Amino acid sequence: MRELVLAAKSGQCRILVGEKLANLPKYCGTGKIVIITDKSVSRLHSKDFPKEAEVVEIGLGEGAKTLEAVERIYRRFLSLELDRSAMVVGIGGGVVCDVAGFAASTYLRGLRLGLVPTTLLAQSDAAIGGKNGVNLDSYKNLIGTFRQPEFCLIDFAFLKTLPPQELASGFAEVIKHAAIGDQRLFAFLGKNSAALLSGDEGALEKAISDSVAVKVKVVQGDELESGQRMILNFGHTLGHAIEKTTRIRHGHAVAVGMAAAVQVSVSTGLLKRTEAGRMVSLIEKFGLPTKINFNCALVLDAIRKDKKRRGVEINMVLLSGIGKPVIQRISLDGIAGALKALDGA
Amino acid sequence: MRELVLAAKSGQCRILVGEKLANLPKYCGTGKIVIITDKSVSRLHSKDFPKEAEVVEIGLGEGAKTLEAVERIYRRFLSLELDRSAMVVGIGGGVVCDVAGFAASTYLRGLRLGLVPTTLLAQSDAAIGGKNGVNLDSYKNLIGTFRQPEFCLIDFAFLKTLPPQELASGFAEVIKHAAIGDQRLFAFLGKNSAALLSGDEGALEKAISDSVAVKVKVVQGDELESGQRMILNFGHTLGHAIEKTTRIRHGHAVAVGMAAAVQVSVSTGLLKRTEAGRMVSLIEKFGLPTKINFNCALVLDAIRKDKKRRGVEINMVLLSGIGKPVIQRISLDGIAGALKALDGA
Repeated sequence: MRELVLAAKSGQCRILVGEKLANLPKYCGTGKIVIITDKSVSRLHSKDFPKEAEVVEIGLGEGAKTLEAVERIYRRFLSLELDRSAMVVGIGGGVVCDVAGFAASTYLRGLRLGLVPTTLLAQSDAAIGGKNGVNLDSYKNLIGTFRQPEFCLIDFAFLKTLPPQELASGFAEVIKHAAIGDQRLFAFLGKNSAALLSGDEGALEKAISDSVAVKVKVVQGDELESGQRMILNFGHTLGHAIEKTTRIRHGHAVAVGMAAAVQVSVSTGLLKRTEAGRMVSLIEKFGLPTKINFNCALVLDAIRKDKKRRGVEINMVLLSGIGKPVIQRISLDGIAGALKALDGA
Repeated sequence: MRELVLAAKSGQCRILVGEKLANLPKYCGTGKIVIITDKSVSRLHSKDFPKEAEVVEIGLGEGAKTLEAVERIYRRFLSLELDRSAMVVGIGGGVVCDVAGFAASTYLRGLRLGLVPTTLLAQSDAAIGGKNGVNLDSYKNLIGTFRQPEFCLIDFAFLKTLPPQELASGFAEVIKHAAIGDQRLFAFLGKNSAALLSGDEGALEKAISDSVAVKVKVVQGDELESGQRMILNFGHTLGHAIEKTTRIRHGHAVAVGMAAAVQVSVSTGLLKRTEAGRMVSLIEKFGLPTKINFNCALVLDAIRKDKKRRGVEINMVLLSGIGKPVIQRISLDGIAGALKALDGA
């Protein structure tokens, strides 16, 4: 196991990479434990949940990230008569972690919170950094808070039960962290894609902890996203819009978004074509797409509505090299050009 | 004008005691200004709101503090295409300040926030300290966050439009702050009750800024209410329960709660009977009740359900003297005794 500590303004989080679910109680203190999870995680893993814990199930998928779901959780908390000594533990993917985090950070103005991410996406990205949130209509994470969990327990055993496509999707965020902050990790991923995709624990511990370390460093420098934290959106400005309009998996959409971002980086003269090629080739090694059929007008409209826009131009994260992110203001026309070059149709 | 600064973990708040609403824009920065208010405040004062501001109205009274009201505000924010540069300003009583604070602290994980409390209750207490929240069913402030506004602008002109009973109610919190933290303010209130009740601005500036100073000191020492902040609940354990079961005004219920708390303080041997008498006499000078008809069983049940209880005993704030609060664990039986002595029936 490797332990990393994220120390930010809203609190301190112990990130336990390679810890076992069986050891969860030792991080929970003496108050009531309430696990928030979904039916699918519960079916596979509830036998390993602490016996004394209460379990609250939410619905499956992004559609479960609603204010209504949070209100149902509040009512369960009320019937359990929780006070501020209670520890809420989200065990699941990004959706569960986001909903559990928001419910815990707003009930009684804040219960204790721990996270046990069960997908690679959540382990390498979503559960780290203290953001939580729910959607409003089609607007992702419009409502939420910044609040560090006390711990984030990462058990690789969960990854064995993931569908292969879901595992591949998770590596998009690991690649993202390498691309914006760790050239060595980038090289390691290139050499070890087969071991990682087959679930080799040694390789996973190295890749996930190094990936998490990139995120920890960025979040510690700018927890409330007033500047540099934006580099974590590399691949996401387009990725979110593509995800919303095509319904492909998050990691797959981010992979396409990263390919588009390096395309824009090359076309603005920031990045060498050979470096862009390394990026595309690494994405492909993990079985992830770099182009895709989509409706360009719909994607542009989704970007325009994205909460990160300010005015008609938007901030986009580009690369000037592997490990060298640059935040740049780009017009929607510039993005349209990159999208056209990427369109697989 | 007197300016106090509250510097806490979640942020820093400038408290502008005696500032004018006309000067609001100079504290708002350059982003969009969105005012959250209610119909009654809007009718009386919207002519003095900054011309460039958008105005969002919520319903009147405690019944408007709901998750549904917050969701309606989120949708207005969405239609106004707010980004994190927007400044949300709550202009109203405690309900408006609580709802505005919660909406602003959760939309996009936090918009900028300022408060302009318009009742004496909100000016001397509710708008200060960074708590916000909404009710869930009959549970007060069950959902909320800790988040300091950037500023709290206190304009005495609002007090001129308050019904006399509402003004009197506000002095309950001023008396509370004096009782738990400022003997000199306690003496000042005793000598100047007539001037204060008639709206004398000099007396109000002294009383409100000293009252706010007590709260600022307590909040700075324990923003997240893990210990000493609880002394601000003096009079409120019983006060909330009485308010809930009898529907009298908040300040009036707190006045009865404070009378009960000094009664318990005397009966446990903490407080001299003469000091308790000074407290009761000051409450009466402001036209506030110290006893009231109520259903003892209902009040006890409401206390039991109160979110601040841990187990069968509850923490209650008592006094060992004017300005000397003591947190003590008290059984529900002990409280029942004090309630019986108070019952006006």
